[in-house]
Amino acid sequence: CEFDFGRIFLPHLLPASDGDTKTMTFLQEVVDILLAYIVESFDRETKVIDFHYPNQLLQMNNWELQDEPATLDDILISCRATLKYAIKTAHPRYFNQLSTGLDMVGLAADWLTSTANTNMFTYEVAPVFVLLEYVTLKKMRDIIGWQDGRGDGIFSPGGAISNMYAMLLARFKMFPEVKEKGMSSVPRLAAFTSEHVICLTHFFHFSIKKGAAALGIGTESVICIKADESGKLIPADLERRILEAKQKGFVPFFVSATAGTTVYGAFDPLIAISDICRKYGVWMHVDGAWGGSLLMSRKHRWKLDGVERANSVTWNPHKMMSVPLQCSALLVREEGLMQNCNQMHACYLFQQDKHYDLSYDTGDKALQCGRHVDIFKLWLMWRAKGTIGFEAQIDKCLELSEYLYNKIKDREGYEMVFNGKPQHTNVCFWYLPPGIRYMEDTEERKKRLHKVAPVIKARMMEYGTTMVSYQPQGDKVNFFRMVISNPAATFEDIDFLIEEIERLGQDL
Amino acid sequence: CEFDFGRIFLPHLLPASDGDTKTMTFLQEVVDILLAYIVESFDRETKVIDFHYPNQLLQMNNWELQDEPATLDDILISCRATLKYAIKTAHPRYFNQLSTGLDMVGLAADWLTSTANTNMFTYEVAPVFVLLEYVTLKKMRDIIGWQDGRGDGIFSPGGAISNMYAMLLARFKMFPEVKEKGMSSVPRLAAFTSEHVICLTHFFHFSIKKGAAALGIGTESVICIKADESGKLIPADLERRILEAKQKGFVPFFVSATAGTTVYGAFDPLIAISDICRKYGVWMHVDGAWGGSLLMSRKHRWKLDGVERANSVTWNPHKMMSVPLQCSALLVREEGLMQNCNQMHACYLFQQDKHYDLSYDTGDKALQCGRHVDIFKLWLMWRAKGTIGFEAQIDKCLELSEYLYNKIKDREGYEMVFNGKPQHTNVCFWYLPPGIRYMEDTEERKKRLHKVAPVIKARMMEYGTTMVSYQPQGDKVNFFRMVISNPAATFEDIDFLIEEIERLGQDL
Repeated sequence: CEFDFGRIFLPHLLPASDGDTKTMTFLQEVVDILLAYIVESFDRETKVIDFHYPNQLLQMNNWELQDEPATLDDILISCRATLKYAIKTAHPRYFNQLSTGLDMVGLAADWLTSTANTNMFTYEVAPVFVLLEYVTLKKMRDIIGWQDGRGDGIFSPGGAISNMYAMLLARFKMFPEVKEKGMSSVPRLAAFTSEHVICLTHFFHFSIKKGAAALGIGTESVICIKADESGKLIPADLERRILEAKQKGFVPFFVSATAGTTVYGAFDPLIAISDICRKYGVWMHVDGAWGGSLLMSRKHRWKLDGVERANSVTWNPHKMMSVPLQCSALLVREEGLMQNCNQMHACYLFQQDKHYDLSYDTGDKALQCGRHVDIFKLWLMWRAKGTIGFEAQIDKCLELSEYLYNKIKDREGYEMVFNGKPQHTNVCFWYLPPGIRYMEDTEERKKRLHKVAPVIKARMMEYGTTMVSYQPQGDKVNFFRMVISNPAATFEDIDFLIEEIERLGQDL
Repeated sequence: CEFDFGRIFLPHLLPASDGDTKTMTFLQEVVDILLAYIVESFDRETKVIDFHYPNQLLQMNNWELQDEPATLDDILISCRATLKYAIKTAHPRYFNQLSTGLDMVGLAADWLTSTANTNMFTYEVAPVFVLLEYVTLKKMRDIIGWQDGRGDGIFSPGGAISNMYAMLLARFKMFPEVKEKGMSSVPRLAAFTSEHVICLTHFFHFSIKKGAAALGIGTESVICIKADESGKLIPADLERRILEAKQKGFVPFFVSATAGTTVYGAFDPLIAISDICRKYGVWMHVDGAWGGSLLMSRKHRWKLDGVERANSVTWNPHKMMSVPLQCSALLVREEGLMQNCNQMHACYLFQQDKHYDLSYDTGDKALQCGRHVDIFKLWLMWRAKGTIGFEAQIDKCLELSEYLYNKIKDREGYEMVFNGKPQHTNVCFWYLPPGIRYMEDTEERKKRLHKVAPVIKARMMEYGTTMVSYQPQGDKVNFFRMVISNPAATFEDIDFLIEEIERLGQDL
């Protein structure tokens, strides 16, 4: 290296007048670190994680912030240390989250986004990105099945916020006065969603309840609808609960159907749900944060039949489409509603002197003023893959999950959490070590089985060989929830996972 | 270049088994484009923007999404086109937003964040980033003045969301039952903030009102407090309005004092406000999205005296500290409240089998489940600059704005919108072209003056030489609001701005 970064500090880089070469050299050093990390991440011989407990990790490097500056050499060391202890989310055997993998064009696009360093406020400050958001949202609405891709939408900071924005729109649509007068002008409202979303499930996946709490509707107004054994909402129960709520004086205003539940990957029957929503005049939202991407697959999109009847749809390309985090879209059927719901002023009075078409200014469509640029990575990946490339990627992940399902459904030592082929890539199962396998189905067995997945998971993390999540649900003790969204995964990786579970769990 | 990217597609890159070299070469090509853009961005000979109207821009490239994949050559072309029409937000003469500039270490950190591609969900999936958030929030609370840096906090997707989270906490603190029962269990609430934030100001800066609308409190419950000529909230009016609200049966629950208003850069008198908040038992929030960073400056932090008495503080390092977008922190004085307000379940029941200290899992502290990793760029910049480096950067921007103020306050053809030295880097002024300069102060003159700033701005964008924002406020016609947050700006750039305004506006 031509510079001694041990003697160079940040102020020596651009915008310093002679900073060009130093800057390029420094950034190139960082890029070299990143490129090495990327290559390593895809290497199956590398650990998914070099795990340390928080207190250990705190001591493995000097993470404290100081008054004095560090040299650029120190900065490079910090970059290396940060990556050393990071999870390799691109690793072909990282199955822990709904968002996994690392797409090279998506990554390049995100680097460009960081470099452009602007926000989605107005056309004035982000002309290209605002246009690309417009083009992409239209395409997504077209895929949903809304005529000519008409409607509205926005990219938001994640599924929970997208769902909250949808709830906000539904309430405003029914009671526009709520914007000025608040909930005191509105009767008690009721929202409905599957028990698999809010009652039985893992603790983080509560966006509908969290939204209702934030919006002043209250979590008690979110009503749990029964689901069948495979996790699909039962429409008859929805109708019964709507009637019950009305009888109690609540006004049903919002049904959130789920396309791809977090744990089971279940798709609610959207057509039947939409019939009920229409009958009772209730806003139909489809939370397709996880499953919306199946709309890109000719083979699997039937699972979302009826989505075109929804009033709004959440669809997170950062999950099943492997777009780098964050990338979540809310699509809305009615035009103009987002603006009416969120704008706080007769803004065009002020802005009529701007010299371009103001319909491209999006700052009034949501609660946020500025928004992070999340569009470019999706747009560039779409361009690089084409719609058919996304389709192939999604189909392959579903094929892998079917392979896993077929492999373990009759294998000794495994029990499926629910019967039937997975609808999404979720495969939920218990592994029963030999010591439990032949026990009678008693409380004692349940208790022991409950401890199996956590111990195997802890061992996986300590060895760093693979990662998969587990959780209990309702009265079901801890089980593994395997999901596949990583385009790097192969049949061999699925085989490896099963071998690893057995290796790490057989003594339990 | 050793590969013909015209014949290579995304599936040829990693994770393809022989994709290493192609991947590194492709990413290197992208990096070369970015490095050239960066060097160009800091070059004063380059345009800030190559402006085109939306309909023109739509036709300047093929932005549509296709079914079929594009070659990597096409992808590189798209990257170049995107940057060609982007705003150069790092340009030393880009003054348009509160967020400007591009820090080389911040950029490197953001590239690393994209590469690590994880989220702030749990320690399990983001061990280092979760620790760094913990370390940095503690340091920020320490700087606010909370003992030993105690308290809580989170990085959120921007100031509007941070402010909404604060309002949510304030409401929950006073009426914890609102979480389950909604607003029907709560009396009518009243929130208070300066007229410079919600009544007079530019249309996007309505986060307090937007928050109140979303939370079901209603915009009518947000009460405008009078400000003095320089834009500071008048405490006596706050007290009067609180009493008035109580008399009308409202329960005052939230005062949002502003540290650095968007337009004037005014700092509300925090000590006097906190006295009133304590007297009436109202949550005191300080919206320091813009001005919070002055806490890093020994010379200027007196402007926020009393901030340590606040219950919550919004502080956006992506503004005055020039951290790449997005980076917004909400700091909260009371420990445990965020969790109680936002968690939806007796989650530890489920999670006691996790094998590490769960206090590092942040997914329950906010409405969001996953969160984008916004911490690393701030942490790495802090390391590279030290606290004293941020201080020097902030002091320099304030010095530049004082230079601008001194330069134009008595200059022919200028009128200041308010008197006195700027408190922040905001300098608000009218430029009066010779044709208006000597007119009497009539409606006709006002009308003509109102048109001056928009025309000059449009010309600036067409020439691409500089950008500065303008707006009306209350009964004041369009004026320029100059802000300086770009560490690349110099005294010469300020001189240039004035020359450019005069050059482009003299014929009006």
